[in-house]
Parts: sequence; C-alpha cells; structure tokens
Amino acid sequence: MKPLSTRLTEFFNIDHPILSAPMALAAGGRLASAVTRAGGLGFIGGGYGDADWLTNEFAQAGNTAVGCGFITWSLTQKPELLEQVLDRKPQALFLSFGDPKPFATAISDAGVPLICQVQSLRDACHAVDCGAKVIIAQGAEAGGHGEKRATMTIVPEVADMLARSAPDTLLVAAGGIADGRGLAASLMLGADGVLVGSRLWASEEALVHPNMLQAAIKATGDDTIRSSVMDLARLLKWPNRYTARVLKNPFTERWHDDLEGLMADQSAQAEMWGKAWQEGNVEIANTFVGEGTGMIKDVRPAADIIEEMVSQAVTCLRRFSAV
Amino acid sequence: MKPLSTRLTEFFNIDHPILSAPMALAAGGRLASAVTRAGGLGFIGGGYGDADWLTNEFAQAGNTAVGCGFITWSLTQKPELLEQVLDRKPQALFLSFGDPKPFATAISDAGVPLICQVQSLRDACHAVDCGAKVIIAQGAEAGGHGEKRATMTIVPEVADMLARSAPDTLLVAAGGIADGRGLAASLMLGADGVLVGSRLWASEEALVHPNMLQAAIKATGDDTIRSSVMDLARLLKWPNRYTARVLKNPFTERWHDDLEGLMADQSAQAEMWGKAWQEGNVEIANTFVGEGTGMIKDVRPAADIIEEMVSQAVTCLRRFSAV
Ligand SMILES: Cc1cc2nc3c(=O)[nH]c(=O)nc-3n(C[C@H](O)[C@H](O)[C@H](O)COP(=O)(O)O)c2cc1C
Ligand SMILES: Cc1cc2nc3c(=O)[nH]c(=O)nc-3n(C[C@H](O)[C@H](O)[C@H](O)COP(=O)(O)O)c2cc1C
Repeated sequence: MKPLSTRLTEFFNIDHPILSAPMALAAGGRLASAVTRAGGLGFIGGGYGDADWLTNEFAQAGNTAVGCGFITWSLTQKPELLEQVLDRKPQALFLSFGDPKPFATAISDAGVPLICQVQSLRDACHAVDCGAKVIIAQGAEAGGHGEKRATMTIVPEVADMLARSAPDTLLVAAGGIADGRGLAASLMLGADGVLVGSRLWASEEALVHPNMLQAAIKATGDDTIRSSVMDLARLLKWPNRYTARVLKNPFTERWHDDLEGLMADQSAQAEMWGKAWQEGNVEIANTFVGEGTGMIKDVRPAADIIEEMVSQAVTCLRRFSAV
Repeated sequence: MKPLSTRLTEFFNIDHPILSAPMALAAGGRLASAVTRAGGLGFIGGGYGDADWLTNEFAQAGNTAVGCGFITWSLTQKPELLEQVLDRKPQALFLSFGDPKPFATAISDAGVPLICQVQSLRDACHAVDCGAKVIIAQGAEAGGHGEKRATMTIVPEVADMLARSAPDTLLVAAGGIADGRGLAASLMLGADGVLVGSRLWASEEALVHPNMLQAAIKATGDDTIRSSVMDLARLLKWPNRYTARVLKNPFTERWHDDLEGLMADQSAQAEMWGKAWQEGNVEIANTFVGEGTGMIKDVRPAADIIEEMVSQAVTCLRRFSAV
C-alpha cells in the first residue's frame, strides 16, 4: 500500500514519503536499512566522520539501499570521507550545518542526489544555488542540532520560494514530526515528505543507551532545551549559530546560563560528561531528542513506527476528505 | 459555505474554525467585528487594560458578537476591567500570560466561556483545572508575546492530554498560521481550529502604523527575533518567562544581548522608543509580528484574508482526499 504518493516517493522510488535522519552516533546501518525495508528511505549518520565506523555501518546495511549524511562543517576537516561514501553509491548524500558548496560538484559528478538540510529561508536559497535536489527545512523543535525557525513557518515559506525559483526541487519538513499527525500536517504545509529523527531514535534499531530512551519516554515536550553546553562538554567546535536540543538535566541547569564558567573548567567537565555518556548517566550526559519526545511512549521496531505513522496520517486526512 | 466544520464552529456557531487574536493595541472593534462578519470569531485585544479604550472599541464592534482578551498578569492589576467586559456579554473571555485561576469563577458565573492561551503542556493542564472551555496552544513562532514550545509539537501533545483527561475541552492552534496551509496543518495536528494573529494584524481593519505593515511585508521569517528589549523600552513588567517576537531592527541588534546596558539607560531609551512608536520609526520601535511575516505579501480586508485561508485549506486537504 502506498497511500501517500508524492514527488518524493517518485523521486526515490519508495512507498512512503518518510526519510530517517542521519543522526550522528544513533543512526547506523541497522536503522537505515530497517527504514528502507519499511518503505521509507534510511540514512546512516556519518556525523563527525569516522572511516571505520562508516565502513562497519554500511556493512550492516548490506544490500539495502540507504543514504548517508554528514555534518558539513565537520566534513570540511575530513573531506576524504566523502569519496569513501560516494564509492558506496548511496541513494543520496545529505549535508547539514555548514556550507554545502565545496562538496556539491563531487556529489553531482558521482551521480548522487544532494540533499541539503537548512534552518533558514536564506540557506534554502543557497542550497538551491548549490544544486540540491531535495531541501529539508528544519524547525527548531527538532532533536539534535539546529537553529531558530519553526517547522510551521519555514516549510511553507521555503515552498513558496521553490515554487518561484526552483519548482523541480523537492521539499521535506523536519522538526517535531513524531507521528502521523505531523506527517499529515507537513503535507498540508507544502512538503513532499518528512524527515524523522527523534521518533526513530527511539526505535529498536537505533544505537542509543537504554537509559536515554527511558528518559525520553518519561519526558514531555516541555522538558527539552536548545543549548551549547553539550558541545562544549564534548570539545566539539560547533559554529555559534547552531545549538542542540536535548533533555534538560542538572548539567544544562548548571551551565546553560554560564557558558564562560563551563569553558573555564572545560577539560574536567568534558571528562565527566564523556564518562557519563558511556555509562548512560542521564543526570550528567544529555539525551539528544526533540520536543516530539512528548509523543514518544515506547521503543519499537522502526517498521512499526513507520507503518503507524502512515496509517495515522491517512486517518487524519480522511477526516476532512469530504471538504 | 462551511467546508471546515469542527467542534469549534459548532461551539461558537460560526462558519469557519478561525479566531482572531486579541492583539493589544492592534485588534480593536473594527477588526474583531470584521472577523466575525466573515464567519470567524473576532476578539478585541484588551491588552494591558484601559477602560476608555475598551468602551470605545466595543462601541466600534456595535452589535456584532465578539470576544475579548486580556493579558492575565496585567489584569491582576486592574481587575475591575473584567467586570466591565463581562457586562458586554462577550462571546468568550480570553486570558493569556499568567495564572487564569483568580478570574475563572467570575467568568464562568457570568456564563461566558473561558479561553486560555498556553505555551506549555504544563499550563494546558492547569487551564483544564481552571475550567477553560477552549485551550489555545501557542507556539514560539507566534507574533507578540510567548514562550518556547513550537506549534508543531505542542498542539498534538496537548491534544493527547485532552483526549485523556478532558475530552470535551476544545483545542485551538496558534503561532505561525498565516494562510490556508497552516490552517489545514493545524487540523491535521488535532486542533479544532486556529487563532490567527500576525496575518490579521496585516489587515485593513487592524490598528497598525503603515510603516510597520510595510516593514512586515518586506521581511522574511528569518528577520524576526524573540526578545525582551521592547518590554524594557516600554517600562512594562512582563514576567521573565515571556518574550515577544518582533522584527529585528537596530534597536534589537544593539540591546538584545545587553539587557543590563538597556536597563542602565532605561528612561532615556523608553522615551526614544515611545516617540519612535508614535512616528512609526521602525528602525527604533519594534514591529510586533511573527515568523509568518514571510507569508504576508499585502494588507487586505480581514474578510478576504479569511476567505482565502479557508479556500486554500480546502485545496490542500483535497489534494490528499483520495487516500
Ligand atoms: C539524536 C539526534 C542526532 C542527530 N544528529 C544529526 C546529524 O548528525 N546530522 C544531521 O544533519 N542532523 C542530525 N540530527 C537532526 C536531524 O537531521 C533532524 O533534523 C531532526 O531529528 C528532526 O527533528 P525530530 O528530531 O523532531 O524528528 C539529529 C537529531 C537527533 C535527534
Ligand atoms: C501585534 C500582536 C499583538 C499581540 N498581543 C497579544 C495580546 O495582547 N494578548 C494575547 O493573548 N496575545 C497577543 N498576541 C499573540 C496572539 O494571541 C497569538 O498567539 C499570535 O498572534 C499567534 O501567532 P501568529 O502571530 O503567528 O498568528 C499578539 C500578537 C501580535 C502579532
């Protein structure tokens, strides 16, 4: 059954207009391939870039067609990884958080579609100039890194821009889409499909510490925050404009309004945070999840999540089918 | 034509599931009555509360049925205004930004439905406890004051809470809804209707300086910011948790990251800002509008805006009517 055919399902020849987010550390080959087998398109989260990890995770995905994503500013520091991944003939190469320009030609020369995730109208225009085949408009309610615009407005605004200047470029909504209601809403806003992060992070196939999954299940959407503390605690050099959405915990409470204090004690705090991450100590290490955490009630196989998302979206749409 | 019947249209006996926001200063009797005549339900923006202004604006609305809203923390300082407004038998009394509890009994005793606008799941639960008949879940993309949650997630999360604990309480989405796409999306998210602020602020009937309207038409959604500078510049004692979304301008650029500096020079800055507001100098005074400003291309009669919103929503919904 393909109840929700869109330009996105045609473009990638998939059943459902659902992409899984290339979540650093959490989205390996198992999750990506499960999403593709369920009728969406799965992405391996190349993240900050580690050649061995990528080799392993592509192996996990086996022969299932998947895409791969990188954190753009980080890829700039290890550009050789791009070639490694392009050699695997991914369904698409997904770039977010930085200027895609330096990589655009290599990607298109490899015959691989470029997907750019953007956080502003301005960057959406730039992504068009870079030849992106798909633009993902990401709202600040998203889990993980992002900026300030909201999904509800950035999606229709980018849709209008594309209609005017690049009508063949596809548009995908990201941020806060955790069930069929969000999927149906995104289609109404003018998106050709959705990118799902948090909800698939809470799947059996994702690489996530069980304590973090439990913390997310307990949390409501009120319990998240956008902050930079976890990047300082990981000694990662994220550009200032990007913060990450995580569950609030004593670590964010202590440092969110005192970044200078955190920097003054950075190496000790980094050691503590890193240890807590390994151990799944959610009082110190931060659980990366979006506002949609309030809609996450369980950890299930990715295929179930996708199937339910599609059938709930259909139910929502049918409720107004007589208009 | 009533293509979008919901529990909200039944409850208020209106044609379209659209309420106009009780925007302080901008939403007088002319806008409120125009919205009601167009088939929605219009609200006078009682704002910070001024008895004469209210008398005047209710007179402007004439015999057309309208509601009225107050900024709750401010009403606490002038509670007598509540009685004044309840005597006018408004269609609903709308409270936002503060604890509605102290006013709930008087409102229900007057036989007037209480509408509570909330910015978190937590406050939505409290609004249920206060006997709200309608809860408005407001996302941070909204124009004017608000908090941090996004429309995309707060609406379905509050919907789930209401389904569990108060199934007869209606739910309205607010924040970033500026055309029919946003209306259709909100219905998918589980809302019974929408509250529209910014888009109707840019109507012929709103009380807005023409320079501010022009600034909003030119702006994209990237050009707004949530800040406290304009409240400091107006000497208003807003609780810290609430910021207002406005167009960025040299005044926000200068002070947004230097609130202490602004406070140190507050009375001089307040005088300058107040003068700029009167004159429509948008380089100093702030234009109160949401991220939806990127979808505002013109200033039109409220009735046209509402009619187009409904017909565009219907078009969006029909696109998937065969699912
Ligand atoms: C745990 C986690 C890790 C993420 N890591 C990345 C990443 O490495 N690269 C990237 O482009 N986006 C990353 N994201 C953001 C996603 O691409 C996507 O925009 C987001 O998950 C969508 O919002 P949602 O979480 O509400 O579904 C991450 C998100 C989460 C939840
Ligand atoms: C100019 C302006 C003034 C506002 N004043 C008030 C107000 O006095 N009381 C209130 O409850 N909400 C006020 N709001 C917020 C609205 O109630 C509503 O939540 C918001 O406008 C919805 O988002 P939108 O602007 O994207 O449509 C105001 C909004 C704007 C744009």
